[in-house]
Amino acid sequence: MFGITMGDPSGVGPEILLKAFSQGLLKHPVVAYGDYAILEHCNRMLGLGARIRRVRRQGELEEGTLGVRDAGLLRVEDLSIGRVSAASGRAARAYVVEATRAALRGEIAAMVTLPMNKEATQLSDASFTGHTELIASECGVKGAVLMLASDRLIVTHVSTHCSLRQAIERAVRERVLRVIRLTCDAVRRLGREPRVAVAGLNPHAGENGLFGREEIEEIAPAVAQARAEGLPVEGPLPPDTTFYLAVERGRFAAVVCMYHDQGHIPLKLLDFEGGVNVTLGLPIIRTSVDHGTAFDIVGKGIADPGSLLEAIKLAATIAATRVSRSRWRQEAPSS
Amino acid sequence: MFGITMGDPSGVGPEILLKAFSQGLLKHPVVAYGDYAILEHCNRMLGLGARIRRVRRQGELEEGTLGVRDAGLLRVEDLSIGRVSAASGRAARAYVVEATRAALRGEIAAMVTLPMNKEATQLSDASFTGHTELIASECGVKGAVLMLASDRLIVTHVSTHCSLRQAIERAVRERVLRVIRLTCDAVRRLGREPRVAVAGLNPHAGENGLFGREEIEEIAPAVAQARAEGLPVEGPLPPDTTFYLAVERGRFAAVVCMYHDQGHIPLKLLDFEGGVNVTLGLPIIRTSVDHGTAFDIVGKGIADPGSLLEAIKLAATIAATRVSRSRWRQEAPSS
Repeated sequence: MFGITMGDPSGVGPEILLKAFSQGLLKHPVVAYGDYAILEHCNRMLGLGARIRRVRRQGELEEGTLGVRDAGLLRVEDLSIGRVSAASGRAARAYVVEATRAALRGEIAAMVTLPMNKEATQLSDASFTGHTELIASECGVKGAVLMLASDRLIVTHVSTHCSLRQAIERAVRERVLRVIRLTCDAVRRLGREPRVAVAGLNPHAGENGLFGREEIEEIAPAVAQARAEGLPVEGPLPPDTTFYLAVERGRFAAVVCMYHDQGHIPLKLLDFEGGVNVTLGLPIIRTSVDHGTAFDIVGKGIADPGSLLEAIKLAATIAATRVSRSRWRQEAPSS
Repeated sequence: MFGITMGDPSGVGPEILLKAFSQGLLKHPVVAYGDYAILEHCNRMLGLGARIRRVRRQGELEEGTLGVRDAGLLRVEDLSIGRVSAASGRAARAYVVEATRAALRGEIAAMVTLPMNKEATQLSDASFTGHTELIASECGVKGAVLMLASDRLIVTHVSTHCSLRQAIERAVRERVLRVIRLTCDAVRRLGREPRVAVAGLNPHAGENGLFGREEIEEIAPAVAQARAEGLPVEGPLPPDTTFYLAVERGRFAAVVCMYHDQGHIPLKLLDFEGGVNVTLGLPIIRTSVDHGTAFDIVGKGIADPGSLLEAIKLAATIAATRVSRSRWRQEAPSS
């Protein structure tokens, strides 16, 4: 059972979820975290014909029906479709907290999230910095790691939502090593070829210290330590050729990136629509669509559920590997 | 007439030049700047059958013959094929100086350069920092701008060969504005759709100052000034979506990038072999192949002249536009 949060009620989340369900595209049993009234309203307005029911606990679901864990927060008359709204932002936050707690209790095998609107949620929670940070905080984890995955490329990030100046400060040995370990683990779980590249921070990976010393002082020692641990990792490599080697030559399944755009630029260029966001370093499995609330197209029935389907598929792959790994451990207790 | 420097004699430059010439691939009259003895040796060893002759001045060239402005610096017995060599590095530098001076005198309409080896040239000239810097210095210019061009994307750079930390310091208003102006001019000369994007420096272009203030304090004012001058430019835009918009949606002919890898990562991912390096901001036209000396394959006859042909083609396009622009100015002196 996978939990799907419906995202900001004013955005495309509800219609994407219902569209995917009513068209029979969800290949796994799911439960929705959101507002029943909003989903039912969306269902009727767009004529999607999905059968949806409130559920209070597992096992209640009927075949062919989408179960909804109803937060009961937002009434249809309070809904501002396609607009930033404090009420929608607050509700979106609550669905995510609820799903995270369910995942921590083991009630759902993974959580898959539809988009929140940062500005909307900040109207009711000034301390809100982001979707992933909220989930990490509920899990009691600092330093969740952002992985973007498409069929052709996987990238992970040593830092994400900070200035480039701060990103340089964050490219330190321990942090790089942690991201390498999480990346290698994720690549294995996804069943991809396990070789992982570590990009440099500076042009030409610093050209032996001529263009910066972070490669020598921070990144190379992290790579050396990872290799000493037996991890199949190479680097620091010149950033401008690494993605070509990964994608066109198939030399690497994933690239560990030193800052947000180093990974986001190539991934979005290769696969703007189909990328999936996976959060590494949590005690639960969480994937997310790689698009926003798309306020400009809400209610038109044209939002594409493709990224949601990819996010569920990826969550299912990771969950299946986790199960088989723990089974394997039970069967081979001496290892 | 275009001048082609043969590059480091120990690298793939000589064989690429002769191969392109002997296969009839050079669609424009060219003269080579290099060592006649080395070219003749390469011609014989690889059985390329190119007819080559020393020339002292323009107009001496026979049809079907490659004229060589012979530097007379390197003997065949001093040649170290596929290895870093002080003699080769010194000779490569001399060819470039000679061709630059010829271009400044107007003897050649453009110079097209084959690769030097930085390490080799530094053995005889410790102050040598790069091919482009050498040409700019001979031209008496500070701040030449690197443009990479392929069929699908053009990128220019506010900074290139420095650390990422220094690149942030260099992303200042006047410098960004100068690169915008040069980029718009180059895009027009190349006959491309004139809209130009300016990428931000930080993730999400700083998200209104949350992830860095360079967009607000430096880049946006430069864009505003450029627009006030009538230049067709937009920005600062979020770097991770700008390249997709340029390439897949055709919204921009070129992207002004704030640092080396911001432009190099997407360009090399799209077109690893076919990119051409164009130096903007010089009083002469200079294009260059987008590959190195490739010491590992020298003398095997397998080096690909594709990038050289593209570099000549691009130089020819720019040169033709320059001529037609000056003609147009003569015809319409009042404008």
